[in-house]
Amino acid sequence: MKIIAIDSSGLVASVAVVEDDILIGEYNVQYKKTHSQTLLPMLDELKRMVELDLDTVDAIALAKGPGSFTGLRIGSATAKGLGLAMKVPLVEIPTLDGLACNLYGTDKLVCPIMDARRNQVYTGIYEFERMEQHDGSDETPHLSYRLKTVLGQCAVPIEEIAEKCNRLDREVIFLGDGVPVFAERLSQLLTVPYSFAPAHMNRQRAASFATLAFSYLREGRCVAAKDHAPEYLRLSQAEREKQEKEQG
Amino acid sequence: MKIIAIDSSGLVASVAVVEDDILIGEYNVQYKKTHSQTLLPMLDELKRMVELDLDTVDAIALAKGPGSFTGLRIGSATAKGLGLAMKVPLVEIPTLDGLACNLYGTDKLVCPIMDARRNQVYTGIYEFERMEQHDGSDETPHLSYRLKTVLGQCAVPIEEIAEKCNRLDREVIFLGDGVPVFAERLSQLLTVPYSFAPAHMNRQRAASFATLAFSYLREGRCVAAKDHAPEYLRLSQAEREKQEKEQG
Repeated sequence: MKIIAIDSSGLVASVAVVEDDILIGEYNVQYKKTHSQTLLPMLDELKRMVELDLDTVDAIALAKGPGSFTGLRIGSATAKGLGLAMKVPLVEIPTLDGLACNLYGTDKLVCPIMDARRNQVYTGIYEFERMEQHDGSDETPHLSYRLKTVLGQCAVPIEEIAEKCNRLDREVIFLGDGVPVFAERLSQLLTVPYSFAPAHMNRQRAASFATLAFSYLREGRCVAAKDHAPEYLRLSQAEREKQEKEQG
Repeated sequence: MKIIAIDSSGLVASVAVVEDDILIGEYNVQYKKTHSQTLLPMLDELKRMVELDLDTVDAIALAKGPGSFTGLRIGSATAKGLGLAMKVPLVEIPTLDGLACNLYGTDKLVCPIMDARRNQVYTGIYEFERMEQHDGSDETPHLSYRLKTVLGQCAVPIEEIAEKCNRLDREVIFLGDGVPVFAERLSQLLTVPYSFAPAHMNRQRAASFATLAFSYLREGRCVAAKDHAPEYLRLSQAEREKQEKEQG
């Protein structure tokens, strides 16, 4: 089974082509260009490099949100366009779940944080559940790990997520573009041991979204391209101002 | 500090640009083209996309070996040429160490395996050591993890590395292009719990080599470009045949 995965929910633009256990190609960029300048050219470049035949692709996976409103719309429009043209379903992955999957198999709690502005972060808390599988008569367990949501993705102040981590009383690993913004504040707030993921695993990667998408597809969790919509978690600035005006 | 990292030691061609904790860009391809067709065009593409000014780059990191002889020579020639032209040092990362770094922070043993043909694998055994850091008067430990070699990289039969894992009596996570080749044999040989890394973390990534390179540079571990040579771990086929002829 072959998947194209895309993510433009945050500062990173990322595209990947994954076939089962093989990452055929991925291209990740975290640079000041806007995603409308990067995402499609990157996908086009990758497609050409790995001579991808679009007829062999089974699904498009994407970060469904939350994240930058403009970024999410660019990602959604791209995935929707591809899904409609290629007649394949979309696999919508919650952004924070996809980020957490970077740390597949860890024994720590995983807390991705994205800077949501207005004194909030998009965040969640995750762990990896150990799954045993005995192959035939073999006594030695072959293990795999399943992402489990401890706290579903939400928009909250940094104080609130730090407090939730403290209450869980386990080591936490943080990642995401919220880390450089809130690292100092976290060090003041946390009473549990913590670490920050290093450069090669601390931002969105379409390849991680693809890994999750395979497990979604095995459970039949996908949508028709026409039915897809991003999940913003909060009102957009325009909607918020309209609401305030109507209420005011 | 900014690093260009490249890897062409195995089936993957990979390039990355990393500045401190930020992965500015990475491009990974695992496709049937030879690395001479992919590596430099990928670097050129990435350089253009992130508008990289080569004068701002402090070092070139590369997988120094073991791996495919042709692949290593393509990577070495590329890194050496860049290092000489840009007047920056090279950071030589043992291939298996770089692969292990994909699983940064795991509590399991990490065993990367690459198919070395002739009934051998290039392999090693690694773990991550927990490092505590107390920031000022703060009582809460800020943690980081350091890659520690349990068994240095070597070329051995799969039976030998499985036996070594069994003796260590801890859960092991395997990764690398040797996994699809030896997965069934490993399931017969292993008496310890084991898992295989998923698609987004099971092959060489230049970004992981870059993460290790930063810790090498902090310890002053780099070489002048002119002094670099790849590390094959074994004789090449031509050298082996010459030796056999001389001895025969």
